[in-house]
Amino acid sequence: MSRFAWKGHICHTNENKKTEIFENSWLLCEDGLCKGIYKELPEEWKNVKITDFGDKFIIPGLMDLHVHAPQYTYRGTGMDLELLDWLEKYAFPEEASYSDIEYAEKAYSVFVRDLKNSATTRASIFASIHVPATELLMDMLEESGLKTYVGKVNMDRNSPDIYREETSASAAETEHWISETENKYKNTKPIITPRFIPSCTDELMAELGNIQKLHGTAVQSHVSENPSEIVWVKELCPSSEFYSDAYDRFGLFGGENCPTVMAHCVYSDEREQKLIKERGVWIAHCPQTNMNVASGIAPVREFLDNGLKVGLGSDVAGGSSLSLFRAMTDAIMSSKLRWRLVDSTKHQLSVDEAFYMATRCGGSFFGKTGAFDEGYEFDAVVLDDSALYTPKKLSMHDRFERICYLYPEVKIVAKCVAGKSIELK
Amino acid sequence: MSRFAWKGHICHTNENKKTEIFENSWLLCEDGLCKGIYKELPEEWKNVKITDFGDKFIIPGLMDLHVHAPQYTYRGTGMDLELLDWLEKYAFPEEASYSDIEYAEKAYSVFVRDLKNSATTRASIFASIHVPATELLMDMLEESGLKTYVGKVNMDRNSPDIYREETSASAAETEHWISETENKYKNTKPIITPRFIPSCTDELMAELGNIQKLHGTAVQSHVSENPSEIVWVKELCPSSEFYSDAYDRFGLFGGENCPTVMAHCVYSDEREQKLIKERGVWIAHCPQTNMNVASGIAPVREFLDNGLKVGLGSDVAGGSSLSLFRAMTDAIMSSKLRWRLVDSTKHQLSVDEAFYMATRCGGSFFGKTGAFDEGYEFDAVVLDDSALYTPKKLSMHDRFERICYLYPEVKIVAKCVAGKSIELK
Repeated sequence: MSRFAWKGHICHTNENKKTEIFENSWLLCEDGLCKGIYKELPEEWKNVKITDFGDKFIIPGLMDLHVHAPQYTYRGTGMDLELLDWLEKYAFPEEASYSDIEYAEKAYSVFVRDLKNSATTRASIFASIHVPATELLMDMLEESGLKTYVGKVNMDRNSPDIYREETSASAAETEHWISETENKYKNTKPIITPRFIPSCTDELMAELGNIQKLHGTAVQSHVSENPSEIVWVKELCPSSEFYSDAYDRFGLFGGENCPTVMAHCVYSDEREQKLIKERGVWIAHCPQTNMNVASGIAPVREFLDNGLKVGLGSDVAGGSSLSLFRAMTDAIMSSKLRWRLVDSTKHQLSVDEAFYMATRCGGSFFGKTGAFDEGYEFDAVVLDDSALYTPKKLSMHDRFERICYLYPEVKIVAKCVAGKSIELK
Repeated sequence: MSRFAWKGHICHTNENKKTEIFENSWLLCEDGLCKGIYKELPEEWKNVKITDFGDKFIIPGLMDLHVHAPQYTYRGTGMDLELLDWLEKYAFPEEASYSDIEYAEKAYSVFVRDLKNSATTRASIFASIHVPATELLMDMLEESGLKTYVGKVNMDRNSPDIYREETSASAAETEHWISETENKYKNTKPIITPRFIPSCTDELMAELGNIQKLHGTAVQSHVSENPSEIVWVKELCPSSEFYSDAYDRFGLFGGENCPTVMAHCVYSDEREQKLIKERGVWIAHCPQTNMNVASGIAPVREFLDNGLKVGLGSDVAGGSSLSLFRAMTDAIMSSKLRWRLVDSTKHQLSVDEAFYMATRCGGSFFGKTGAFDEGYEFDAVVLDDSALYTPKKLSMHDRFERICYLYPEVKIVAKCVAGKSIELK
């Protein structure tokens, strides 16, 4: 039995989306699971390995529900374009480079290094269409100790020749890749990843649906991101009632044995939200991308009010930052603009709600993690905000909020995934 | 005659708001002024002090047209509130603390240190209502080598007792303070700073107008930021035709001998924009604050199309970051949402336009600076982006854009204001 205890300001979010901060308290871990928060270290834990982090904050690991690993090479560039142009001019040509395994190794090693050193402990990741590069990424991520889903992307239409698959090869390679990797790793799992409806023919979608049923693999994709994209999907799938329906008809939209996360949902109407709820689909809200490629602002207040499961995605490289703190504050800021400019009946998101999405709610996609409830997997990050000296007396909640906004000035000093320590650079 | 030459990738914006990058070139400085950009070092400059910055970027210093020094103590907190509540609960009580000169010294030393170490070379700064603390801030800024305007704030109504002045005392102290400081410093100048119309009676405004006329001092304030504030101004000044008119009638809104910068202009309509143009007023666009306190998105495309002068403000602590790179990218992101949600006839801002606002256009408020044109004051910052390794071949413009988005990962290695080197920590 492996046991340890950490001391610090323990800060997580409860089921009611409120941030709870236990000042100068003990957080216990046994065999990778949380064993409670205590003001005093219990007698029977006096002999375990303890670490006193003093005035630092201990928060749950952040959960990135949507990120494109091969796009990390060009984050922060190409931002003057809208979604479909940006895909043509930046995303597709760059992702095509990952047919070269040496290029993939150079690029992915930087991505994995930076993800490892961030406050993120788990992520759902898009790779490229290439199986060898995707497996290399999975090997590297496994080694990092982070827990991830990784998707070999499927695309058999509407992209340049250099970055498009032949339908049956795409399906066959996916099936082979899943069989090879579904039980290969401890931390890393394959996830079925049709890029989005415009990239996948009905034939391919049907094949992927069959593979999903056979293996019970998780699914990730994009839905209802951008008005031009939605019009295009309507043209491509005239018989679909709405965008998600184009996934659902192939059994690729949640439900029993098909855990699914869908990015964006900026334009998910009542019908789509109803289906998302019925199918238990997780929404990956990616506020920075929604601004950067000029898509709009997702109705997150509605999602939360309707009881949908919403996590956050950095969505590199539509987002320029891997930091989920950035995603949290972008979610808050854009919700304020939505309140002001779109719908004044829907109140802005609070920092507590953003934290809830980035931890407990996003974490639920990976199992029981993202909070320090007893029995939850022990994903934790220790944050040092001492560089932010101020003579003003700040409440603990002020300090928590300030960490979220000023994250580039906050130091990550320790990190654990399921109770295992991650070595930081 | 003092001369030196810097070598690197020299990057500034031209009059047409386009970024120009002179790869591996020389930037010359003589007696604090730019003396041109050269591919080869001219023969007669071969014996001057040269610094070769290799693969680094040399850009003009960034110009912060709006920032509240006493609010730096609580940046990144209180963000769940809208403007007027935020002022009551955060800004006013905190600013009141600066009656204590020891508190002011602790707080301002952090602000000045961080501004000095940022990419900003010039700023227009709000202090508090207290003359001693404001003079202390001016002393510290003078010492820093940055060029700044600093305003003792005037407020004689609608704030808590602990943070409100008596009308005639406010005017008398302002007059005395300006007389004492207008010729005291080399880098630091006083600026008349009525907080905003709700904080200043007509009597006070009239007195400030007289002081302005007497001394020719510059003016800064806020205008048309937030719908509730605008309604309130209408109630307070029923005879004003629109918000700016409430400044203009007292001679505090630009024109000959009254250089003026006004923050926000989120709701400046055609009439207000006409007056801004006629009076040659600079607009300090503060996109992050406009999101954080839920004000909206300023019509910056309109401003630029109409030939108005628009610079950027970090607006700490409505904005949480002192970085003008953050202001640049926030300006771009929010302009995309404005295009999508408010007015699809007005195209989003490009990174080049944001850079233009942060340098050349904002710089014009301080004289001839913010670009490397011959005869311009030599404000320059050297940026090292080598931590951002990528195997992808990036164009020079890509690297410039990436610096703007990923600024927390870029190192500032040298900085000059009007040809004088600033020592970085």
